Amino acid sequence: MPPVPDPTLADRIRRAIDTKTKPVGSLGRIEDLAAQIAELQESLEPRMDACTLTIFAADHGVVAQGVSAFPQAVTRQMVGNFLAGGAAANAFAGALDVSVRVVDAGVAGGAIEHPDLISRRLGNGTDDFSAGPAMSRETVDRALALGRALGAESPGDAAAFGEMGIGNTSAAAMLAHKVTGLDLDALTGRGTGLDDVGLSGKRSLLEAAASRTPVNLSAADALAEYGGFEIAMMAGAMIGAAEARKLVLVDGFIATSAALIALGLEPSVRHATVFSHLSHETGHRPMLDWLGVQPLLSLDMRLGEGTGALLAWPMAGAAAAMLRDMASFEDAGVSDKQ
Amino acid sequence: MPPVPDPTLADRIRRAIDTKTKPVGSLGRIEDLAAQIAELQESLEPRMDACTLTIFAADHGVVAQGVSAFPQAVTRQMVGNFLAGGAAANAFAGALDVSVRVVDAGVAGGAIEHPDLISRRLGNGTDDFSAGPAMSRETVDRALALGRALGAESPGDAAAFGEMGIGNTSAAAMLAHKVTGLDLDALTGRGTGLDDVGLSGKRSLLEAAASRTPVNLSAADALAEYGGFEIAMMAGAMIGAAEARKLVLVDGFIATSAALIALGLEPSVRHATVFSHLSHETGHRPMLDWLGVQPLLSLDMRLGEGTGALLAWPMAGAAAAMLRDMASFEDAGVSDKQ
Repeated sequence: MPPVPDPTLADRIRRAIDTKTKPVGSLGRIEDLAAQIAELQESLEPRMDACTLTIFAADHGVVAQGVSAFPQAVTRQMVGNFLAGGAAANAFAGALDVSVRVVDAGVAGGAIEHPDLISRRLGNGTDDFSAGPAMSRETVDRALALGRALGAESPGDAAAFGEMGIGNTSAAAMLAHKVTGLDLDALTGRGTGLDDVGLSGKRSLLEAAASRTPVNLSAADALAEYGGFEIAMMAGAMIGAAEARKLVLVDGFIATSAALIALGLEPSVRHATVFSHLSHETGHRPMLDWLGVQPLLSLDMRLGEGTGALLAWPMAGAAAAMLRDMASFEDAGVSDKQ
Repeated sequence: MPPVPDPTLADRIRRAIDTKTKPVGSLGRIEDLAAQIAELQESLEPRMDACTLTIFAADHGVVAQGVSAFPQAVTRQMVGNFLAGGAAANAFAGALDVSVRVVDAGVAGGAIEHPDLISRRLGNGTDDFSAGPAMSRETVDRALALGRALGAESPGDAAAFGEMGIGNTSAAAMLAHKVTGLDLDALTGRGTGLDDVGLSGKRSLLEAAASRTPVNLSAADALAEYGGFEIAMMAGAMIGAAEARKLVLVDGFIATSAALIALGLEPSVRHATVFSHLSHETGHRPMLDWLGVQPLLSLDMRLGEGTGALLAWPMAGAAAAMLRDMASFEDAGVSDKQ
């Protein structure tokens, strides 16, 4: 289980940060991040030496209803692109010294053969949630358990999670709506680039799909009703990583829907989560506001794949180094405030 | 000289970014940063392999009037801390794989002996600008020339600049006021942590010092009147780095005042500058607004030393890698938008 904050530890951490050779509070949110990392690791000398990005890919039956600007085949093609190192996530990870794992959580079109692919297939994509449940409750449990193991085993001090799944802004909007009660329209956006007609169709479809089930759903029931495999597995991975006291770098809109699920199932995951960036996708802001969190970055990004989480990783490294490596006023012989 | 933008090049860069395997525009400001880097390097395969942080330290005669919460001795003590590796800038730089140079531009108390220190002393701190000019015009020219050489020689593809100088928020506010015409009160803040009484005294002192000279001053005249050595040298370094086609990572309030000077002297520096973060120091926002720029980060930081510029470095690396290393839809065999 993630550590329950110890008030003594928190005080000691804050005192250590405040006696570093800098005006008190002058590193702003980096100080808060350092304190979070130190509490998570229960150490005044926290380490952030390595990070792994795990990308979960899966397909969504609802795509047959025309909710995405891109064809379903792109999910499978992008898995190939990740494995070949040609996607944005690979480029960012290379620049930021993060290793990448790619998980097939249930891409349409049958098994993908590749030596580096982690196969955790739950099917050939979810069932169309506009007609009925996306998956069974048993499959939800399996997805969470498989994800939990992947999160616990994620190499390094920080675990970044990304996703690929054509149609998954629809699933994420439904999950957020059913779990938080936030207005569905406010959660529904253009995804990869729907035009006005496409967006209007997506809104109607999601509204109808929402009326299929009770107003509020538990986290697990919401997953069963609306999917997807990659979101369920990512939610499990967040729980597993937090239990292993890894810093969980939450990406954008889809990943935040997974975090809502993870927090619904296991509230103590909160201690481990860092909300990396504010996505340009409509609906991310209300989710973050509902959670009461401020993302670190706001760069008009809306790609997913973990690209926003990757950009938060160097900040976590800097935060840990600040607490671990900076001298105190006393140690450095620097005069404090007059 | 920094490159004059070539419209053909800019179009080719934008096309290259738009055909990468991602929805058009989905990497937001990282795409703009990639385009800027590519134009600066005149390359569709830009590199951001290494960055050096140069910290300019100097003292300010005006500190005798009580404009800072910390004693003047801290400038010298912090130079020792930088050289020993114990400051926030060192911790961040270590985590982010950036090398650090420390320049004595004129710290009070005589020469500092240290094998790693770059000595470019222009005096024992500036003269008190509340009584008369901070330095001569000859010293301004010397500071700019010395800085220019340091900027040109800065190792790597990106040059981050930081500063240390007790009292330098006062000098920076005066420079910004005289060069832009922005309201002096809006530019005057608490610096390292003045209380209300201290802030009120600082405001009165700066107002009186402003009335000593004409309403508007040229960049060089403003430096002569108000200093400081470290700001003048940093402005020169920004020009030198931009001429050498390095990306110039501008830190917070003080560094932005140096950028105002650099841009006043050499407008084409603009192509090279990245405004890294919005400082918590009052007065940074109006300067950025006057420049018409949006900083990449907003983390409530107000330390200086280049700490904000350092956090922008991984983003520059990710941006360059995106353009250089990502596959196109065609190369990767990924279907484009329907």
